[in-house]
Amino acid sequence: MCLYTKNPFRILLLAAFTLVDIITNTALAQRKLTLAQQNARVEDSTVIQKIYESALTTHQSYDNLRYLTHKIGGRLSGSNQEAQAVVWIKSLLEQLGLDSVYLQAVTVPHWVRGVKEKARLITTEGKAIRLDVCALGGSVATHGKLRARVVEIKSWAELAALSEQQIKGKIVFFNRPMNPSHVEVFDSYLEAVDQRSKGAIAAAKRGAVGTLVRSLTLAKDDLPHTGAVSYEEKIKKIPAAALSTNSADKLSQALQTTPNLLVELEMNCQQLPDIQSFNVIGQINGRSYPTEILTVGAHIDSWDLAEGASDDGTGIVQTIEVMRIMKGLHPERTVRAVLYVNEENGASGGVKYAELAKLSPEKQLAAIESDAGGFTPKGFRIDASDEVAERICMWDMLFKPYQVERIRPNQRGIDIAPLKGIAKALISLDCDDQRFFDIHHTAADTFDKINRRELQLGTAAMASLCYLLSKHGL
Amino acid sequence: MCLYTKNPFRILLLAAFTLVDIITNTALAQRKLTLAQQNARVEDSTVIQKIYESALTTHQSYDNLRYLTHKIGGRLSGSNQEAQAVVWIKSLLEQLGLDSVYLQAVTVPHWVRGVKEKARLITTEGKAIRLDVCALGGSVATHGKLRARVVEIKSWAELAALSEQQIKGKIVFFNRPMNPSHVEVFDSYLEAVDQRSKGAIAAAKRGAVGTLVRSLTLAKDDLPHTGAVSYEEKIKKIPAAALSTNSADKLSQALQTTPNLLVELEMNCQQLPDIQSFNVIGQINGRSYPTEILTVGAHIDSWDLAEGASDDGTGIVQTIEVMRIMKGLHPERTVRAVLYVNEENGASGGVKYAELAKLSPEKQLAAIESDAGGFTPKGFRIDASDEVAERICMWDMLFKPYQVERIRPNQRGIDIAPLKGIAKALISLDCDDQRFFDIHHTAADTFDKINRRELQLGTAAMASLCYLLSKHGL
Repeated sequence: MCLYTKNPFRILLLAAFTLVDIITNTALAQRKLTLAQQNARVEDSTVIQKIYESALTTHQSYDNLRYLTHKIGGRLSGSNQEAQAVVWIKSLLEQLGLDSVYLQAVTVPHWVRGVKEKARLITTEGKAIRLDVCALGGSVATHGKLRARVVEIKSWAELAALSEQQIKGKIVFFNRPMNPSHVEVFDSYLEAVDQRSKGAIAAAKRGAVGTLVRSLTLAKDDLPHTGAVSYEEKIKKIPAAALSTNSADKLSQALQTTPNLLVELEMNCQQLPDIQSFNVIGQINGRSYPTEILTVGAHIDSWDLAEGASDDGTGIVQTIEVMRIMKGLHPERTVRAVLYVNEENGASGGVKYAELAKLSPEKQLAAIESDAGGFTPKGFRIDASDEVAERICMWDMLFKPYQVERIRPNQRGIDIAPLKGIAKALISLDCDDQRFFDIHHTAADTFDKINRRELQLGTAAMASLCYLLSKHGL
Repeated sequence: MCLYTKNPFRILLLAAFTLVDIITNTALAQRKLTLAQQNARVEDSTVIQKIYESALTTHQSYDNLRYLTHKIGGRLSGSNQEAQAVVWIKSLLEQLGLDSVYLQAVTVPHWVRGVKEKARLITTEGKAIRLDVCALGGSVATHGKLRARVVEIKSWAELAALSEQQIKGKIVFFNRPMNPSHVEVFDSYLEAVDQRSKGAIAAAKRGAVGTLVRSLTLAKDDLPHTGAVSYEEKIKKIPAAALSTNSADKLSQALQTTPNLLVELEMNCQQLPDIQSFNVIGQINGRSYPTEILTVGAHIDSWDLAEGASDDGTGIVQTIEVMRIMKGLHPERTVRAVLYVNEENGASGGVKYAELAKLSPEKQLAAIESDAGGFTPKGFRIDASDEVAERICMWDMLFKPYQVERIRPNQRGIDIAPLKGIAKALISLDCDDQRFFDIHHTAADTFDKINRRELQLGTAAMASLCYLLSKHGL
């Protein structure tokens, strides 16, 4: 949008378009534009201004994030810290004086990393060079030192083209870098994540004894990025680890000159028995339509390498702050905060919530998730029918003054995805993602990476959408 | 812009608008839309795609910034580091193989901070409490310890309402916080900066012996923010310092209970004789219109409290990278990089360049400046006639795919401001500013705050605009 509005032709044109746009949209959605509806839009814009004012002038969510990250810390499914976070979040929701706050039991996996992983490349002359490595979440252990030759793979086609002899007994090294040309790093991530999630299955099928994957980031540094690895029943589970991008480059270079080099990998991670954890739920009953439910949330659990500040501590404290703001607005429809467990390695929290929602007579209006790092909000991503999406798009002009510019398809919340077909709209907050994948799933996902104002702007965007949905329905 | 484009009515409407918009704009600017012009637009979009590809796939600008900040460091006007930066920038431009690289002599002020400033508040019982403080750039020294009572001021009206007795011999403490309600922090900064720049004059006029100003940031922390203070001839120059926001709050609270407390301030900063420095200039001669000049730049100098990474190391390395890209594009008009000295405390680099430009027979087309912190680019700000601004706005659709969304009035580059009336358009890069004022003019303006991708996206946006201006003129 060109905001250089001095030219009268352009001003007229823009005004005409805006009018036509509003009328057409409203007509599409509601068949006619009454005076009452026009007034409602003015009222909405006033309320949203107050929501931003409220979100930008309190330090509470930032202080909460400091506590969560510094006092509780990383909170992988099944950990003590996750249990502590459940209690802490419940108490914060209770302090808000909501209509109800309760726990929803969820069975979660309990994987532990054990002592810090080690990896070294060993040249034919016996020289050992350290590699920065971490086990992928869910990986089996190496049971002592795993020593094997390495075969480097840059595409699935390359893997398929290798003979049995070239793979058997080796470590497959998935080293396809993320594409730096996309404007949004998330797009680069989505193109590359199959190496991490599916690599171990594909390699084991061909007789490999382990996998190493290049960390999923565009940064060049020494931080290994963890994340979930999948196994399949009947396919041997082989150890799977991530190398930092610097270590991946080092290994790749060494392989050029010494194809016979060995890599030594040592990981004593362990899959313990499943354990009971809890989604934390807090609710404000709608004053006009209490059975219409708007769910807003984020995930409690995080990876264990750091404090889980960006992923998804930010979403937790934003959700709590949204509830504080919504309570002051006495919403017409029920607004329910759900803080899910086990997003990172199983999504059983989201699945459990959706299962129970499906059995309930309640009408699931929409679900919003904040899990995009807590950076400057850019818009929303929606999964909904065309008609429902159009209704939400009607509100785009209300977000423009706050630079929340894009309402796009393809929501990205893992926890709300199981609500597909149950809720009318699934919506994820969309944030500037340039910094996200530098720290994602690493030891660098710490409180100091989060900017208070960016966090607050995200809260305000979510709360504004909550307000509109709770007032107008879908 | 709602990008949820499944609804056919909306698609049609958007398409119609876009078409009308393009035709109207082109008609306004060029009176008719020829087939050749339509083809040019397609070509432009292809070139811009290549510019982004080029900017996003090299680490050079980030590596340059690391060198500048870690090997040279903070580079206040007149310092050895500024002189080193001049030499280093010149050599980088020379390595690009430009048509000419040269220095432009500029006389700059030479103010030095001296040993670290100290401030304490002293209660009536003689208890001393440390305050985090720094001298404002250009301040006079205290010549030993300045001890005085304090009068806190939250508005100019409050200052005016005080009696002579209430001010005389005291330290005036300007403590009007920045307004957190604006979406853009720059707006909050502009509302508050008068306290820092004009406070010492206003206070001295009324007989004060010093000023303290609340640091210009929305962050709550212990970092004092420096910045230039102004004095007036014939008005006594009194010491002027900034307190961190935490220290400002501490002092304000103490004044509530102990209005008679003393503040002790010790600063031995010094104004040395002016010194000769240099703007660094590198030029690619236009292949079709060599006398039409497009200036692109940033400022070399920085405050001395840190490395000057964000302000304006980012602009320096972006400008160099823009020249690398433009050289590959063989521009039709002359593209000239100008790295200015002395932006922070005098702007003599920008003034000198404009003086010489005015005397030259060259036609100054436009000047672009990057001095907004190196964060995710959001758009451009333009000072130009309506007609010229319209021509630039014509290109807004070309930037949309890269999320450079806003072309707005009121450019903010200090160095290019003296070109007003000489160049047809003055344009500043507009960036996400949520993080900028947390580190602005402080010890925290360090390399680690800069994200490589955000830096590169800024380079790409600048280079794309350079390309369009150099190809189409104005």
